[in-house]
Amino acid sequence: MIDKSESNLTYVSSGSVKTLAGELPSRLKLILNNLSEVIAQYQPEHVAIEQVFVNINPKTTLLLGQARGAAICAAVMNDLMVSEYTALQIKQAVVGNGHAKKNQVQEMVVRLLRLTGSPSADAADALACAICHAHGGLGLGRIATTGYRMKRGRLV
Amino acid sequence: MIDKSESNLTYVSSGSVKTLAGELPSRLKLILNNLSEVIAQYQPEHVAIEQVFVNINPKTTLLLGQARGAAICAAVMNDLMVSEYTALQIKQAVVGNGHAKKNQVQEMVVRLLRLTGSPSADAADALACAICHAHGGLGLGRIATTGYRMKRGRLV
Repeated sequence: MIDKSESNLTYVSSGSVKTLAGELPSRLKLILNNLSEVIAQYQPEHVAIEQVFVNINPKTTLLLGQARGAAICAAVMNDLMVSEYTALQIKQAVVGNGHAKKNQVQEMVVRLLRLTGSPSADAADALACAICHAHGGLGLGRIATTGYRMKRGRLV
Repeated sequence: MIDKSESNLTYVSSGSVKTLAGELPSRLKLILNNLSEVIAQYQPEHVAIEQVFVNINPKTTLLLGQARGAAICAAVMNDLMVSEYTALQIKQAVVGNGHAKKNQVQEMVVRLLRLTGSPSADAADALACAICHAHGGLGLGRIATTGYRMKRGRLV
C-alpha cells in the first residue's frame, strides 16, 4: 500500500497473507477476508496486481490461479479497479530495465519509498507493482468497460 | 440448483455464467456478482464444485483457476460450505461408473431430476455435481443406480 500525492510516493503498509494447510475454499476465504480487511482499513483508490508468468507445473498453476482469482475478487467486490502489469513492465517502471534482477527491484523499492528496513520478498514485489501503477497506470484513463454489464442502470 | 427433501431430489434451476471478452478483473467480477445473485435468490445450504483435472495448457489452466477461485469466493463470502468432487466421484455417484461417458452422465441427470428437456452440457455437469453432493456428501451413502422404478416412462 503506497500513497501518491503529485509525483511523491510514500510507503503506507505492506505484508502478505499466509494460509495454513487446509481445504481450498477456506484458504481462498482467508485471502478474500484478509484483503477485504486491508481494503476497509486503508481505503485504496487503485489496485495493481502482477500478471503471473506460468512455467510451473499444472497443479501449482491452478492453485496460483485460484489464489489470484480470490485476490482480484477482494478488490472488485469492493468496487476497485484492478490493473495488471507484467514482471517486465514492473521492472521497467521501477528499475528502468525490464530484465533487472530481483534484488535490484527490491533495492529500488527501498530507495523510492525511502524505507528504513527491507520488506519481505513478496511484499517488495507487491510494492514494486504499486510503484509501477503509480508511475504508469494512473491518470491514463485505463478504465475497461468491456466485460461489464449494466444492471438497474449500474455497471456491474 | 437442486432441492433435497428426504431422499427426493428436485430440480430448481441451472445455468451458466458467460463472460464477454475483456479484462480479467471485470470478468471475475461478473462471475462473483452473478453467482452472488443466484445465491441471494435461491439461498442454498450447500455448494458443490467439480475438482478440475488439469491437462490443458498453462495459460488456460491459470484462467480456469482464476474463474474457479471467483466461483468459490462467491460461495464463501456468503458463508456457504463448499465441497469439491472429482469427475470420477461425480460419475460414480450419478451413473454408478466412474468412467461413464459424458452423455451417460447427462442422461442420468435428466432422469434423476425428471427433467422434461436437456440442460446445456455445462449446466448438466453442475447438476451432476449437485446430485453427487446430495447423495454422497450429506452422509446418506452413495446413490444406487439399480432398483429405480419406471413411472410414466421415466426413472423415479
